[in-house]
Amino acid sequence: MTDDTARPPTTPAADDPARRTGARRILAIRGATAAERHDALAGEEPMAIRAAGPGQDPIDVAVTMRTPGEDAELAVGFLFTEGLIAPGDVEAVEAGDPARIAHPDDEVLVRLRVPFDGSAVAARNFVATASCGICGRASLDSVALRCPRVGPGPVVARSVLLGLPDALRAGQAVFERTGGLHAAGLFEPDGTLTRVAEDVGRHNALDKLVGASYLAGDLPFTGRIVLVSGRLAFEIVAKAGAAGAPAIVAIGAPSDLAVDAAERLGMTLVGFLRDDGFNVYTGSERIDLTG
Amino acid sequence: MTDDTARPPTTPAADDPARRTGARRILAIRGATAAERHDALAGEEPMAIRAAGPGQDPIDVAVTMRTPGEDAELAVGFLFTEGLIAPGDVEAVEAGDPARIAHPDDEVLVRLRVPFDGSAVAARNFVATASCGICGRASLDSVALRCPRVGPGPVVARSVLLGLPDALRAGQAVFERTGGLHAAGLFEPDGTLTRVAEDVGRHNALDKLVGASYLAGDLPFTGRIVLVSGRLAFEIVAKAGAAGAPAIVAIGAPSDLAVDAAERLGMTLVGFLRDDGFNVYTGSERIDLTG
Repeated sequence: MTDDTARPPTTPAADDPARRTGARRILAIRGATAAERHDALAGEEPMAIRAAGPGQDPIDVAVTMRTPGEDAELAVGFLFTEGLIAPGDVEAVEAGDPARIAHPDDEVLVRLRVPFDGSAVAARNFVATASCGICGRASLDSVALRCPRVGPGPVVARSVLLGLPDALRAGQAVFERTGGLHAAGLFEPDGTLTRVAEDVGRHNALDKLVGASYLAGDLPFTGRIVLVSGRLAFEIVAKAGAAGAPAIVAIGAPSDLAVDAAERLGMTLVGFLRDDGFNVYTGSERIDLTG
Repeated sequence: MTDDTARPPTTPAADDPARRTGARRILAIRGATAAERHDALAGEEPMAIRAAGPGQDPIDVAVTMRTPGEDAELAVGFLFTEGLIAPGDVEAVEAGDPARIAHPDDEVLVRLRVPFDGSAVAARNFVATASCGICGRASLDSVALRCPRVGPGPVVARSVLLGLPDALRAGQAVFERTGGLHAAGLFEPDGTLTRVAEDVGRHNALDKLVGASYLAGDLPFTGRIVLVSGRLAFEIVAKAGAAGAPAIVAIGAPSDLAVDAAERLGMTLVGFLRDDGFNVYTGSERIDLTG
């Protein structure tokens, strides 16, 4: 142990366990049966991290998409692992100012015993992975503004959806050798794979898929399906929506904010696509359960 | 199709398939047997995305950790899905200027037919997830500078390592209900779980783990083991190294840059920890194969 100071006071209120998950109504497809039920999803909301030394105005450091809970820990851990603070620097951790932002729980201000070097933040060139506003609602609003709602169609047969993961895997060049890459695939409604991209980052795989289509003059993704390996976070739905995809399908679980974004954009969102079933979170009208 | 322009000329050279994977010498543990072999890892390198309209100086947009390959597609897709360009805007895509940076393949300049609004980049508040420089070497150097090499020890028994995933899962509160969260756990060398954190983002889960330890005055992680669900990218190793962890263990695959970072920091890196085996990529002296 290198820091024997008492634990600083922390006030962020997002430790409410209810915010760590979001309940959504889903359609669970297993074999030939379909059942409506409520399901618990991982919570995802943007959080702003700010820091200030004695007498300093707070400096914006980063915005991260996180699961609410342990917000003070996240802010302090981020500042420390990014080399921006040292052990013993933290005086107190506070939630956002309600007079300043609509959702003070989605902002954390770390007050330091030492001056905070704002120029270090700008100089660090944080890696950008996604877009979002300073709070969940602002973020969803900006998605709705940036991309129009997708149009109706296509209708995809249950059997076609079930075959997509194998088709994606077959189209991946590198994964079989490394086991380490995410993939994104673009499919016709009949299940034909038209394009695939791979990357260590799932957002990068989708950006490569969209970029290849852009360069080929093949945007938007109207009438087609995007399949991604792994899980579905907000940013993936936002990016697929920006490309005009009416349906986004994932092997893994979606977050609650991902489902909200798909709903706002009129997209079909399918998750847990594996073996003989999948979960439909939004837009079930695009899925033919008899096919 | 909404864009019938010809495909713009693209020059980035990172489509060399050799850069998409990196071969590393590993120690593969399966049951009681240990075998040295060469393994192919997913490639991971930072890439800078820049954009410029006619007569404009290039504007830095983002740095992303990506698998080399389809770099023009990644840059164009990122600009499009982030709402920064429209179909038809792209005039040409170029690699970086060799007079300016050491690794021109790790930079992409997108030349536009229309002016590029640099203020839109600053206003978008891209989500920060990790730290890195403009090229792989610079990034690794900055890690080595920011965190000293970890010290020797501990030595962990093979049987202890094999038990960590179950212990982590048992410590996760939310995953069982949602299937959608990454986890990071801090373990003593005897396999005791001392702390666990969860998040939709794997870097956030680790930041929460480190932040909780910071606030408890329990840093650095000397003599202890960090286990993360999912895969090991560079940023995870860098963050664990910043916290002083001598060993980082993952359920999934590491990238080549993650292994390089662990080697530079003197850390033990274990991946593919599942069932009765695992792969040791660096620091095998910390693992007791007879235990």
